Amino acid sequence: MKKVLIVNLNTTENMTEKMKEAAISVKDEDTEVEAITPEHGPVTIESSYDEAFAIPPVLKVIEEIDQEDADAILLGCFCDAGVPAAREIADIPVIAMEEATLSIALTLGNKFSIMTEKKPRVAMKELHIRRAGLMERLASIRPLGLSVADMDENPEKTKQEGIKLAEKMVEKDGAEVLIMGCAAMAGYKDEVEEAAGAPVLDPTATAFKVAELTADLGIQHSKVGLYHPPSPKEFK
Amino acid sequence: MKKVLIVNLNTTENMTEKMKEAAISVKDEDTEVEAITPEHGPVTIESSYDEAFAIPPVLKVIEEIDQEDADAILLGCFCDAGVPAAREIADIPVIAMEEATLSIALTLGNKFSIMTEKKPRVAMKELHIRRAGLMERLASIRPLGLSVADMDENPEKTKQEGIKLAEKMVEKDGAEVLIMGCAAMAGYKDEVEEAAGAPVLDPTATAFKVAELTADLGIQHSKVGLYHPPSPKEFK
Amino acid sequence: MKKVLIVNLNTTENMTEKMKEAAISVKDEDTEVEAITPEHGPVTIESSYDEAFAIPPVLKVIEEIDQEDADAILLGCFCDAGVPAAREIADIPVIAMEEATLSIALTLGNKFSIMTEKKPRVAMKELHIRRAGLMERLASIRPLGLSVADMDENPEKTKQEGIKLAEKMVEKDGAEVLIMGCAAMAGYKDEVEEAAGAPVLDPTATAFKVAELTADLGIQHSKVGLYHPPSPKEFK
Amino acid sequence: MKKVLIVNLNTTENMTEKMKEAAISVKDEDTEVEAITPEHGPVTIESSYDEAFAIPPVLKVIEEIDQEDADAILLGCFCDAGVPAAREIADIPVIAMEEATLSIALTLGNKFSIMTEKKPRVAMKELHIRRAGLMERLASIRPLGLSVADMDENPEKTKQEGIKLAEKMVEKDGAEVLIMGCAAMAGYKDEVEEAAGAPVLDPTATAFKVAELTADLGIQHSKVGLYHPPSPKEFK
Amino acid sequence: MKKVLIVNLNTTENMTEKMKEAAISVKDEDTEVEAITPEHGPVTIESSYDEAFAIPPVLKVIEEIDQEDADAILLGCFCDAGVPAAREIADIPVIAMEEATLSIALTLGNKFSIMTEKKPRVAMKELHIRRAGLMERLASIRPLGLSVADMDENPEKTKQEGIKLAEKMVEKDGAEVLIMGCAAMAGYKDEVEEAAGAPVLDPTATAFKVAELTADLGIQHSKVGLYHPPSPKEFK
Amino acid sequence: MKKVLIVNLNTTENMTEKMKEAAISVKDEDTEVEAITPEHGPVTIESSYDEAFAIPPVLKVIEEIDQEDADAILLGCFCDAGVPAAREIADIPVIAMEEATLSIALTLGNKFSIMTEKKPRVAMKELHIRRAGLMERLASIRPLGLSVADMDENPEKTKQEGIKLAEKMVEKDGAEVLIMGCAAMAGYKDEVEEAAGAPVLDPTATAFKVAELTADLGIQHSKVGLYHPPSPKEFK
Repeated sequence: MKKVLIVNLNTTENMTEKMKEAAISVKDEDTEVEAITPEHGPVTIESSYDEAFAIPPVLKVIEEIDQEDADAILLGCFCDAGVPAAREIADIPVIAMEEATLSIALTLGNKFSIMTEKKPRVAMKELHIRRAGLMERLASIRPLGLSVADMDENPEKTKQEGIKLAEKMVEKDGAEVLIMGCAAMAGYKDEVEEAAGAPVLDPTATAFKVAELTADLGIQHSKVGLYHPPSPKEFK
Repeated sequence: MKKVLIVNLNTTENMTEKMKEAAISVKDEDTEVEAITPEHGPVTIESSYDEAFAIPPVLKVIEEIDQEDADAILLGCFCDAGVPAAREIADIPVIAMEEATLSIALTLGNKFSIMTEKKPRVAMKELHIRRAGLMERLASIRPLGLSVADMDENPEKTKQEGIKLAEKMVEKDGAEVLIMGCAAMAGYKDEVEEAAGAPVLDPTATAFKVAELTADLGIQHSKVGLYHPPSPKEFK
Repeated sequence: MKKVLIVNLNTTENMTEKMKEAAISVKDEDTEVEAITPEHGPVTIESSYDEAFAIPPVLKVIEEIDQEDADAILLGCFCDAGVPAAREIADIPVIAMEEATLSIALTLGNKFSIMTEKKPRVAMKELHIRRAGLMERLASIRPLGLSVADMDENPEKTKQEGIKLAEKMVEKDGAEVLIMGCAAMAGYKDEVEEAAGAPVLDPTATAFKVAELTADLGIQHSKVGLYHPPSPKEFK
Repeated sequence: MKKVLIVNLNTTENMTEKMKEAAISVKDEDTEVEAITPEHGPVTIESSYDEAFAIPPVLKVIEEIDQEDADAILLGCFCDAGVPAAREIADIPVIAMEEATLSIALTLGNKFSIMTEKKPRVAMKELHIRRAGLMERLASIRPLGLSVADMDENPEKTKQEGIKLAEKMVEKDGAEVLIMGCAAMAGYKDEVEEAAGAPVLDPTATAFKVAELTADLGIQHSKVGLYHPPSPKEFK
Repeated sequence: MKKVLIVNLNTTENMTEKMKEAAISVKDEDTEVEAITPEHGPVTIESSYDEAFAIPPVLKVIEEIDQEDADAILLGCFCDAGVPAAREIADIPVIAMEEATLSIALTLGNKFSIMTEKKPRVAMKELHIRRAGLMERLASIRPLGLSVADMDENPEKTKQEGIKLAEKMVEKDGAEVLIMGCAAMAGYKDEVEEAAGAPVLDPTATAFKVAELTADLGIQHSKVGLYHPPSPKEFK
Repeated sequence: MKKVLIVNLNTTENMTEKMKEAAISVKDEDTEVEAITPEHGPVTIESSYDEAFAIPPVLKVIEEIDQEDADAILLGCFCDAGVPAAREIADIPVIAMEEATLSIALTLGNKFSIMTEKKPRVAMKELHIRRAGLMERLASIRPLGLSVADMDENPEKTKQEGIKLAEKMVEKDGAEVLIMGCAAMAGYKDEVEEAAGAPVLDPTATAFKVAELTADLGIQHSKVGLYHPPSPKEFK
């Protein structure tokens, strides 16, 4: 029996629920899933500014949960905001959605592409890949060019745009694996996969399975470097 | 219910058994494990020459198994020999021990080190990391400098040498995660982990869990590039 | 006439004053310097956890200042925490201490080394260099191994350790330029420079001059990618 | 007087003959050329699967030849399959066609492009370049998109497609040197070179000259790392 | 009070004057600017051949000036020819136009693009970026495809081509910062900036400010490596 | 029958003779060797300053020789100074000593080390490797720490130091191939090779054979990028 806590980075309950459902649909029989929405912070995360205000409430959640009672924490945002800080204070594995998805993508083909919402986020995504030292495995990052609102209103158009993007990634960019960096696209994973002829990873499901894997193996983040526990100090 | 087939790369039944045991010790409840030793090939794999003769019998095994009946194949050698060819002909995920272990290591800290047997294998390991595009995450590859026979005869010395190596990796090389690239060391994982203060990954257990993960997610290697199915042809 | 605002990342007034003094000692005649200490946040920043709580109050400061009245903002921490978010909301240049110092270091020699306080911060510094795509110019990151308290109590020992470290960086690591990544060392810059025979950069002074430079040139961070303004939204 | 042995990787005599002719057309006066076709293995090599079955017969050839009697061995496939194993057991230089051609390409311009047959092989070629640590010199890898059969049937079309590809490599990809990674194109080298205005390397001729060079210099592959002789062991 | 010497690399007085004007338009109040045209050498620098003949006269200039009387030297060519030699013999900072501009570009966004005159110079520019270890920050190098004469004759067309190029750099290549690698374009900086919506750096102005910065900080190039003073010797 | 011209970069006749001898000792039967010492320039090349004055006289030599009468030019300095300019104006291959040696080293093992004279040259060598995009194949660059005069006076000590350096390169740095970046060491090649157990390349001999190879293959440097012919212009 193991328990994975999903901590949403944004404050939209409805998205927390969707992540929980995605997790439940792929979970091991013996896994208990709990999903938490922080009380404070932005309703969606689309910028570094949003991330900045999302992180402290999430760290408070991690400080308050009973770590004895859980086996792994999945931070629920493809932006991986707050991950180093969360790992510094957690005694159980903290799984980062983007990082875990990239890791699995590396085992499925030579190069991966990431689908994102809007063009300006492409640069931040690329920064993440470079920070991770994985530029040589990146085929491309392409934006859908649709806002989340657009996607909600025009599901058929969204699907068609997603398929076009996926085909370009495979045909022009040399991608062998595609990553749905864009939650609003998750519902079209199967259609995109079929059209592109290449595996498509849904970060929520993929990272959730990595959370289970770390729990099963009893492995934990290294505390000798990046995630060394912070020394206690005064906060004004 | 899912089934993972472990296919040993070498022809030593005893090692096949050990891998199976390592797998069983971490497997999900609903996973069936089967382990196969190829009929032909070298009894251990320590060189590219050994790899060359190990691969064709393993491919024959993969061609003969009933892929309908299994959900994932784990190729049992930290050398990852034969992986591209196996993936070209398999319709279920083929998990590579080194690749899967590296992927999980990436999620646990900034840099990893690999422990190997003898100095000349260091160059080949480094070639693998470069081929994988992961050089920026490599802290070091260090050889124990003991033959497998030495290790079998001197367990206490082996453990002590392994601990010394692990401490150097953390202290001098900046490693945050250690990989037991050397099967003969696997029994000392816990002691090494405690001495080094950093997580140590056992490739067999780690890669086996990745095999389960791919089976659970229903994902498969991409067939549009590296692992495109071979066209049929005459073999003389 | 131009005005540079220094915004300290931590909440220790005394450190804000020291930064202001360092700035004044190198400023152009026509530059006005103002230094601000945020009301809330940690008294020092030594971890990602500390950074997480330091950033939101700093963003509030930036939102409240009159950007019409200033020509550039210098974020006062060698960790560069909060920089992307600050740039998203600022209409004047936001200078990052680490980034600006690295940029100037690149113009002084082939490779640079960074002196930091404690070993666990080495991994985070390396992550920053990789994120910046500058690994090929990095000679080494070496920790003094002294706490800030140790340094305050033992100035002579601190200086001697700093000099030893600098000599290793030049002799063993091939560094041509040294960066004082550690504020407590700043007072020994001249002695270290003389002992090592290589230029030593003080991040506060260096980055302050880059702030003046951007103000004089009238250049601003690009808003088409990484620093695109955030879209307005609800914060719970 | 020196002797270079060409060992074809595939089992098609006709191709062995063509390689021999290409070698003879560029050989030094004092060079004797012998070309060997292995008895077993695939008739062409177009996948990792084909490579796997081609390698053991080639290693047998190398074990059986009289190394005293030859000065260098050229492995005849642009895939470089079997090269590490062959070098482990050979006491004379073993020249790899792709590796040798890339090495010479590096001396002729900033970046090179590789022409290959079909799109799925592009990923494998890229993996080779990354493995060799030469990504920063790669302009592009482009497939002709024609099967070998297509090329045989439509020589004029093949030539025209090759010329178009070469022009794209120079104009769009910034290639300064072109590599005929595709044997079926070798006959059009001069036309392509003229159309593209950039040097075109034929791997067989180029690598053959490197074989002569190593023989003349009396240099041999390093045996202290990648190509360390295998330890003797039982093969089942 | 400080003095910056601009040493033009070419022998065209008129260009020296233009550089001086660009410098004066951005200089600190307390900066004296002097600009020198070498007596011998090519009238423009467009090739490595031109550079070879331009460098010795510039080194003579540096040997003859009174270094006591100046605080920094700006070498006036975006090619950075002669920079290492000049730094070896100078006791005051020698600022390189390309290097300084790249350094400032790094602080303004994730990736930069460089505008150059003709296609064949693209390869040399790329070589410079690779030599500087900055490939991961390069978006693109694109040529205008116009000769300097063309640009002089057709100012409107030149401006329009420059704007088109800048838009491609931002839209297609992901550039966030643009560098005017082409002096003839400098007059259109503002129009290009407005059209592209991204900051455009003029190398002369930018590098001049870096020269002032080094003078103000009293920093000097490292003499322990790349720029070690040459040992005296006979010149025939 | 082919003719290779060696053009020494320095003005010491005696060194020109030694290069010619090294060439003759490895040349093909049908190769004619001619060696030229430029009239003007430094007697040795040990700095960028020396290089700057060595290049124009060498370019004059190349302009004056009858290129119809020769098949390849070898520029005789391991610094590769003047190579791009020479290639711009030559219609026959210009071979660069360092570049050609590195290219052959790549075919002999995973990583190479370079032996150089004095520590300050290490940075320049590293810059060359980075410029060539070959950092991932570099094991180390180590200086002997002896001046050329020291070496001439103490041959036994020089040999012993060279052997010690070579052993460190193999044992500590993981080098598989060693490059004699230091002409004064060339006489000890065999002893060093035997002591280190790894191949040692002498740049003069190696590059000379590459010159023959290019002549035999009739290949020429690409003129579409880096080595585009300079446009004619006025030189003051």
